[in-house]
Amino acid sequence: MQFLRNTWYAAALASELADAPLGRILLGEKVVFYRASNNRIIALENRCPHRFAPLSMGKVTGDEIECGYHGLRFGEGGACTGNPHGDKKIPNGSSIRHYPATERDGFIWFWPGDPQKADERRIPAFPEMSDTENFTAVFGYLPTRANYELVIDNLLDLSHVEFLHPLFKQPGGVDAHKTEFRQDGNDVFAMRWKPGIPVTGLGKLYWTSPSTHGDSRAHMRWSAPSVLHFDLGVTEEGAPEADGVCLPNAHMVTPQDEFNSHYFWSIARNRKIDDADASQHLFNVANKIFATEDLPMIEAQQENMDGRTDLMAMKPVSLEPDIPAVRARRILRQLIEDEQLQTIAPSQAAE
Amino acid sequence: MQFLRNTWYAAALASELADAPLGRILLGEKVVFYRASNNRIIALENRCPHRFAPLSMGKVTGDEIECGYHGLRFGEGGACTGNPHGDKKIPNGSSIRHYPATERDGFIWFWPGDPQKADERRIPAFPEMSDTENFTAVFGYLPTRANYELVIDNLLDLSHVEFLHPLFKQPGGVDAHKTEFRQDGNDVFAMRWKPGIPVTGLGKLYWTSPSTHGDSRAHMRWSAPSVLHFDLGVTEEGAPEADGVCLPNAHMVTPQDEFNSHYFWSIARNRKIDDADASQHLFNVANKIFATEDLPMIEAQQENMDGRTDLMAMKPVSLEPDIPAVRARRILRQLIEDEQLQTIAPSQAAE
Amino acid sequence: MQFLRNTWYAAALASELADAPLGRILLGEKVVFYRASNNRIIALENRCPHRFAPLSMGKVTGDEIECGYHGLRFGEGGACTGNPHGDKKIPNGSSIRHYPATERDGFIWFWPGDPQKADERRIPAFPEMSDTENFTAVFGYLPTRANYELVIDNLLDLSHVEFLHPLFKQPGGVDAHKTEFRQDGNDVFAMRWKPGIPVTGLGKLYWTSPSTHGDSRAHMRWSAPSVLHFDLGVTEEGAPEADGVCLPNAHMVTPQDEFNSHYFWSIARNRKIDDADASQHLFNVANKIFATEDLPMIEAQQENMDGRTDLMAMKPVSLEPDIPAVRARRILRQLIEDEQLQTIAPSQAAE
Repeated sequence: MQFLRNTWYAAALASELADAPLGRILLGEKVVFYRASNNRIIALENRCPHRFAPLSMGKVTGDEIECGYHGLRFGEGGACTGNPHGDKKIPNGSSIRHYPATERDGFIWFWPGDPQKADERRIPAFPEMSDTENFTAVFGYLPTRANYELVIDNLLDLSHVEFLHPLFKQPGGVDAHKTEFRQDGNDVFAMRWKPGIPVTGLGKLYWTSPSTHGDSRAHMRWSAPSVLHFDLGVTEEGAPEADGVCLPNAHMVTPQDEFNSHYFWSIARNRKIDDADASQHLFNVANKIFATEDLPMIEAQQENMDGRTDLMAMKPVSLEPDIPAVRARRILRQLIEDEQLQTIAPSQAAE
Repeated sequence: MQFLRNTWYAAALASELADAPLGRILLGEKVVFYRASNNRIIALENRCPHRFAPLSMGKVTGDEIECGYHGLRFGEGGACTGNPHGDKKIPNGSSIRHYPATERDGFIWFWPGDPQKADERRIPAFPEMSDTENFTAVFGYLPTRANYELVIDNLLDLSHVEFLHPLFKQPGGVDAHKTEFRQDGNDVFAMRWKPGIPVTGLGKLYWTSPSTHGDSRAHMRWSAPSVLHFDLGVTEEGAPEADGVCLPNAHMVTPQDEFNSHYFWSIARNRKIDDADASQHLFNVANKIFATEDLPMIEAQQENMDGRTDLMAMKPVSLEPDIPAVRARRILRQLIEDEQLQTIAPSQAAE
Repeated sequence: MQFLRNTWYAAALASELADAPLGRILLGEKVVFYRASNNRIIALENRCPHRFAPLSMGKVTGDEIECGYHGLRFGEGGACTGNPHGDKKIPNGSSIRHYPATERDGFIWFWPGDPQKADERRIPAFPEMSDTENFTAVFGYLPTRANYELVIDNLLDLSHVEFLHPLFKQPGGVDAHKTEFRQDGNDVFAMRWKPGIPVTGLGKLYWTSPSTHGDSRAHMRWSAPSVLHFDLGVTEEGAPEADGVCLPNAHMVTPQDEFNSHYFWSIARNRKIDDADASQHLFNVANKIFATEDLPMIEAQQENMDGRTDLMAMKPVSLEPDIPAVRARRILRQLIEDEQLQTIAPSQAAE
């Protein structure tokens, strides 16, 4: 399966990466992450060129990682920097691949494509996740046995909420929403408004107003290949959005391989930001929904596709709320095709 | 692997199917069962045509089943009957496959072949299982990691009882039995009599006579493709069978796929029919034998066949008690070949 | 994958084989072992020719093994010796394969090649394991999810000890050793001396001298295909080796199939030989090192090789301490090729 390569993917929660190195399979490649001095994030091929042991079973020493089996050391650029054996010479051909990587907004990001093209300014921004003055965020990670595009479908079609998530059921069901789909460049938006409804769901956890009703919104934005920003909130009827409860979400779905994904999420809030119990409660509620309602359904879909992953090639029936996800699938397909063409024939492409 | 299709298979115990729908893979196909009004049994393709979610993860509403992911509804014939989204129109191509199915004698039966040919009068009858005036029955289900014909072999060759099941060992071993094999149409019978022997085994659980000896019988009847009736009983020496302890069994082995089977069994009895503790005890004894003595052996056979399932193609040594099972395998092969020919060339076949 | 066949392999610990037969997959073949009269070890194909049940699920009766499913019996040469059914005749074609096998020095050995060529005098000798006057030995078995040559690499390159096994770390690290590699016929030796060092590791468990330092040695000898003798010991500085603590080891790595191995080990000692608690402690220490330090690393290597097993074909970087293991791999490859040629063209080979 072809993936988009010249792009940033979430690789881990920042909290997953402490003193020990972290091994993870991303886009079918074995990668090891570790923290060098000044908290710089290093990402290398997770396979020692000596006897193919995973470097993630080794240890970090200063800016280097040492193989846990026979002690070869590698620097942050992937060059072998130490051989404790015999004449101590660095063997020929002992470099390993290096990936651009960094930490931002509570996530570790990595770039699987051409390192020359990696530009950290293009890392998707989730400023609320690190704006500790105005927000507090909780973070979660769920390995998922399904192709990453099935998870994106789930996030871009929130009509499923009425059927799959009892907590979010609202009077009027799917009809009560005003919805809008739009595309802005390569970004796809699926927006829902529900003005003047009874306050429910996550918003209710932080609703302190005597009003029983409010204006609710749930706006999902997808950016290729698999990064989603979710603007979730509720406010007094007619009041500005920023005055109300704001629960901005990040959802990132990074392919492990064709049939498995890494699903990372975070939810920030602008209420009770110093309340650790509230954070734990929000984590528990959200994690339970994703882990016990969404994931089993998505994994069952994958299971029901009998070893295939190209949903559209299976000619599914499509409904109105599928428009954004189908659009995103088409954009992503085009971006991957374009990238493949450039990789195959860079000189012609440049003409 | 080819299976006989225009025939009834046991799909579930009736007790497995309550309010929630039940998903099961049968003959390699994903099927969902649910109860509509008046306890009618509905069987549909277990895959929503929208995004391929299993309908078994949805819910039953009246005579319909609603997909648990986005709410499409399907009626008992497989047609899509409701789309809650957008303009609410029923999308083209949104019907799913419907299978004839019904409940009979404590089992759910389904017909994987041409629905036009499904005739409920051809469902194998196990009247004792529902004759609550004269009998009480216990039911069991065991998923089995082996081709279904290996399970049928086990049931049609009861000579294994002396070696595999300590509870049924009898003085004289296999030689003490009078045996007879016969074929009646496409049914195969493996019959054993043991007159005037010490009463042992399941019969002894219900033996209240002062006699220590009785006339024992164990007659197995196989009907294609995989339905077995087992007439098990013991009576006073020389007395009519109906006067004694009667323990009629049903054994059904339905292919999940080439390498896995659904094994359903039930045992009725004409003694202690209002004694729930006796029922639980009988279930425990029988289930332990099937689950811890038969199945491990059958699964080990399958494992030892190194990914193959056609036993006869592996040129096994055959012994006298294999005659009925080998006969049944031959009949089944012929019925499948005949059906394939009819399916391929129905007009020529009709000439 | 081709294995060397005309050779002795360890098949089991002697203690694994008591009254019940033992089934094991060796070189991809299913083998059952049992003890006949006078403790003779019998090894047969673990598949009844009747219905392919594993004979290891049967029982031993005298010198014979009886199939647990239908009671066919087999003698120690593999011939069917009893059929309890019908006319009791021994069916044609009912013999199964017999393998030469025996017990020696605490292990069960078997010969998967031409039985005519099996010569028990060629069984590798580990006399300390059965010399109960001067030694006591502990034995262990660990199934390993890796190709057997990766385990041999581990044993022939003890430079890994400094990095993988904290218990054995010593001042000076890998540089403090005097090492020597040599080949003697087809045997490969990897020898290490460390004179006058602080006594650590297993040796320290039995060190009673007031000296804090001693002369330590660790000499590994590999014999094709996968038998290793490890001469481990520590003695007073300058004293003869036999006067000190001697801990001779046996390590045998028998292929289950291309991707799985049976790893057998034993450690004898010439100290505290009547102390059962000391034996248990030594077993615990050694087993923990092999099971929680070596095996996870070796299995991770195999996992990291993405379904391949030919390490050298993957062009690894090699270091000085790899010399013995690379040599052993080359010798084994040559022995297997020679054997294949002889098998294909025995007459030409004889010319």
